[in-house]
Amino acid sequence: MLPLTDFDRRDWQTTTGGTVRFALVGLGWWTTDVAIPAVADADLCEASVLVSGSRHKARRVADRHDVPHAITYEAFHEGEASDAYDAVYVCTPNVHHLEYAETAAEFGKAVLCEKPMEATVERAERMVEACERADVPLMIAYRMHTDPAVRRARELLGDGFIGDPVSVYGNHTQPLLEMIADPDQWRLDPDRTGYGTSVMDLGIYSINTTRFLLGRDPVAVRARMTSTDEAFADVPDERSSATFRFEDDLHMVTTSSQHAQNDTHLKLTGTEGQIELHPAFQGTCTLRLSRGELRATVEHDDAGAEREMREEFDYFADRILSGAEIYADGRHGLTDMRILAAMYESAERDERIEL
Amino acid sequence: MLPLTDFDRRDWQTTTGGTVRFALVGLGWWTTDVAIPAVADADLCEASVLVSGSRHKARRVADRHDVPHAITYEAFHEGEASDAYDAVYVCTPNVHHLEYAETAAEFGKAVLCEKPMEATVERAERMVEACERADVPLMIAYRMHTDPAVRRARELLGDGFIGDPVSVYGNHTQPLLEMIADPDQWRLDPDRTGYGTSVMDLGIYSINTTRFLLGRDPVAVRARMTSTDEAFADVPDERSSATFRFEDDLHMVTTSSQHAQNDTHLKLTGTEGQIELHPAFQGTCTLRLSRGELRATVEHDDAGAEREMREEFDYFADRILSGAEIYADGRHGLTDMRILAAMYESAERDERIEL
Repeated sequence: MLPLTDFDRRDWQTTTGGTVRFALVGLGWWTTDVAIPAVADADLCEASVLVSGSRHKARRVADRHDVPHAITYEAFHEGEASDAYDAVYVCTPNVHHLEYAETAAEFGKAVLCEKPMEATVERAERMVEACERADVPLMIAYRMHTDPAVRRARELLGDGFIGDPVSVYGNHTQPLLEMIADPDQWRLDPDRTGYGTSVMDLGIYSINTTRFLLGRDPVAVRARMTSTDEAFADVPDERSSATFRFEDDLHMVTTSSQHAQNDTHLKLTGTEGQIELHPAFQGTCTLRLSRGELRATVEHDDAGAEREMREEFDYFADRILSGAEIYADGRHGLTDMRILAAMYESAERDERIEL
Repeated sequence: MLPLTDFDRRDWQTTTGGTVRFALVGLGWWTTDVAIPAVADADLCEASVLVSGSRHKARRVADRHDVPHAITYEAFHEGEASDAYDAVYVCTPNVHHLEYAETAAEFGKAVLCEKPMEATVERAERMVEACERADVPLMIAYRMHTDPAVRRARELLGDGFIGDPVSVYGNHTQPLLEMIADPDQWRLDPDRTGYGTSVMDLGIYSINTTRFLLGRDPVAVRARMTSTDEAFADVPDERSSATFRFEDDLHMVTTSSQHAQNDTHLKLTGTEGQIELHPAFQGTCTLRLSRGELRATVEHDDAGAEREMREEFDYFADRILSGAEIYADGRHGLTDMRILAAMYESAERDERIEL
């Protein structure tokens, strides 16, 4: 049966009552253009505090979106407006995630942290420890997990739609410098992004979404990375490719690049059928199904990153309000960080790395 | 400019006069259902001799298609009807290609040999030597080279449509045992197929078509192969994945399997655009183009393997009649054989193999 009836159903929802008040930390374009509208559209969330390096900028954005509190990073750490929020959403350069998560944990606030979780495994581990020590919920913001197309794909996989999975292909490429022309942007600076750029920022989608869809993790990886363009001189992975092993004989191959035509694609081929998400990772997620001689395509007219973020915010709020288990918790994110680190290590040492 | 005007044009054609008479060797379903109708539809070809293990079968097929001569393999080797053909088309199990090519060469006939060229590199080398010694034309039957969609893709790549190539993804999967239910078929018998099945029979398409499209060859490969189903116990590659290096930093990844949902796909992503052939390799070749925010899909209503084979037969006949250079000559095929052998060696030794 094609999953068209109740395609958007929130099979994860456990409560419909209550509101979680968010402090949104880091006011880059993703927060202002996507996250704030998503929170405004969510059932269980409201934005109560905006946090930025500049109080002026925070105030300007807050006024535009009717958010009561606008504070600086310093004021956030000092506890200003800490009675006004229940949770924080951290959307800063990777290497700053830890400090805001730690402060939030100290104040007993729940933490929703953008992916990749942090710049290094060690810093991601410290984030998990801080949140566990403070006993606050921590979730990593993998918005694919609450995209309806991804959830329906996962159900189909669970129902055996493709039979035994044979191979997975993932690609995520985009022309970063055409999107953000600044050559000094943080995604090209290893002091702020961590191990690199294409794999950290883009390749993670293929890996994490496959983990979510199949419910299993790779056991070994071999990656190759190259950088030749001057703008990518400080990072190893202007371009990358990788192969992953799992405990069975599933074959997974991926490619990613921050300097290429935009394309997002995840394809799972099995003994009996195939599920493609194409496009996959940038707000529009089209489901392409085939089994034997039959083919079907499911396109969603109400697509976009804002819708995906709304679903993610409401999922997180639902978990906070009901206390139900969080799927993408800190340890889930930590597994990705270890896979990412292994990929960079593999590329540098030209060896397969066991996970 | 989208290549829709004269999409099917034979930019390779050098002559329109003359006819090449073919002996078709091996009367499996591909010859009877695809190659014989393709020759009948071709401008420069005619089928004059059919060669099979059984004279009765050869006669039956010949009568159905109005082919004058029907002979056995033994009679072919003994020179029966050798005045009645100018060229042979060899479409037998891989390990028999050499013997028919050698006999044809001895009789001074041109040779069109199906891919993969032979069961091993050594036997493929002997084929090249036999044809060079006899000074007869040898072509390996890569029908993708004369598919209009592939030729137009090649022109677009040459014109810089995708910019600098960043990554290539190729997949070729099919459910072999659903297509041909016999577990004793030659494609699962290493004595007849050569090194294996999925990479020899399917993976070769991604590799060879990429070589043709980009005009360059990989310099190193790393492959992984697994077989778990009982039907694939004698071959190493029920499933396979591989990564290829080129002289620059192009990243190529491929997968193939004879035990999976049917899918054929070649995707070339560049700094400026992307060209996909999807489906790609089984007679229908749909061209999917993107560049920046623009997308276009070119589907061909007059598709099918027979059309591809017709173009290939006419290309080969054109070369024989005019003496013009053959693109996919024996040495071109030999390069593929060495790549295939390296992939099996890589998988067995778990090492990267330099080419």
